[in-house]
Amino acid sequence: MQLYASPLSGNAHKIRMALAFLELPHEEITVAGPERKTPDFFRLNPLGQVPVLVDGDTVIRDSQAILAYLAALHRPGEWDGRDAVERGRIAQWLSLAANEIANGPAMLRLGKLFGVDIYEPGARAMTAKAFPVLDAHLASRDWLEGDRLTIADLAVSPYVALAPDGGIDLAGFPNITRWLARIAALPNFPSMQGWPAA
Amino acid sequence: MQLYASPLSGNAHKIRMALAFLELPHEEITVAGPERKTPDFFRLNPLGQVPVLVDGDTVIRDSQAILAYLAALHRPGEWDGRDAVERGRIAQWLSLAANEIANGPAMLRLGKLFGVDIYEPGARAMTAKAFPVLDAHLASRDWLEGDRLTIADLAVSPYVALAPDGGIDLAGFPNITRWLARIAALPNFPSMQGWPAA
Repeated sequence: MQLYASPLSGNAHKIRMALAFLELPHEEITVAGPERKTPDFFRLNPLGQVPVLVDGDTVIRDSQAILAYLAALHRPGEWDGRDAVERGRIAQWLSLAANEIANGPAMLRLGKLFGVDIYEPGARAMTAKAFPVLDAHLASRDWLEGDRLTIADLAVSPYVALAPDGGIDLAGFPNITRWLARIAALPNFPSMQGWPAA
Repeated sequence: MQLYASPLSGNAHKIRMALAFLELPHEEITVAGPERKTPDFFRLNPLGQVPVLVDGDTVIRDSQAILAYLAALHRPGEWDGRDAVERGRIAQWLSLAANEIANGPAMLRLGKLFGVDIYEPGARAMTAKAFPVLDAHLASRDWLEGDRLTIADLAVSPYVALAPDGGIDLAGFPNITRWLARIAALPNFPSMQGWPAA
């Protein structure tokens, strides 16, 4: 199994976490920015993005989709929802990860850490919308859904943890902060540069 | 069952299509823009967006999540993937719907049709990235995944169909155009203002 990734990608870290928690041996192949726009890489992912997971003949792009694949294969029910209600609720967070988190704190980090030209007001507005909802939701819960780790936590947490890289202070979000520490305390948690210490 | 929606919302139309194809009786409750920012509506969806589905005691927000919920309840396997590979591949399109489609053609439509202040270069870039990938993918397929209608088609199609409302010409995307006509020809397809005629 090969994970095409880059060391500082929070999207790649979602998959690193999943593979570490599942104790699945794999090879991580670093694909630098320009290499994502080559014909070889476009054959793996026509959107030209990491992460991509190659598992034998199966190629899956997109971090949320790779999580859904790994969950269905290795932790069906437990990681992706035991019934329709849990599946729906977990999917709510996958959408938040794909939209508000990707275009909010992850975008601000792209601008600040990598100098990418971003539309900062939009990214700030997305963050300001998502973080209070997330913090309030976590006030009465240890995990986003279902009293255990699911792919919802794996999808949402990395770019929330890395938000300070984009100039977002997590001090005002105590429930988020405790949840991030809870995830980082799980056995086999892979370290990530920028993830706040517990 | 209640669907909180608005008539011109493509996100709401994803659910209208699902409920129509499933032949599930329901009540559609129109929530105008300002009504989405009231305490009553925030209790249903703290993000202040339609659609929201209320099914007895279950409240699900976010169009992709509602599709995942309805699929798991009424068409498990068929609509949301028969195995891990199909589940992963369908999830790829749910992410595309939540990110590139929502922030590409749907955003351009918001700007043009509703006068919302958007960042047009970003929305154009997202559209320019997603549409050729979608059209190429559909060159050899009738449906996005698995040779049948799945929630991937339901999640991606409305804002692609409505792209002309945002000034995007679909003439250069023949495979997309045929796919949209295929969906519109399904029994019980609910009409939508702006969906191109077959």
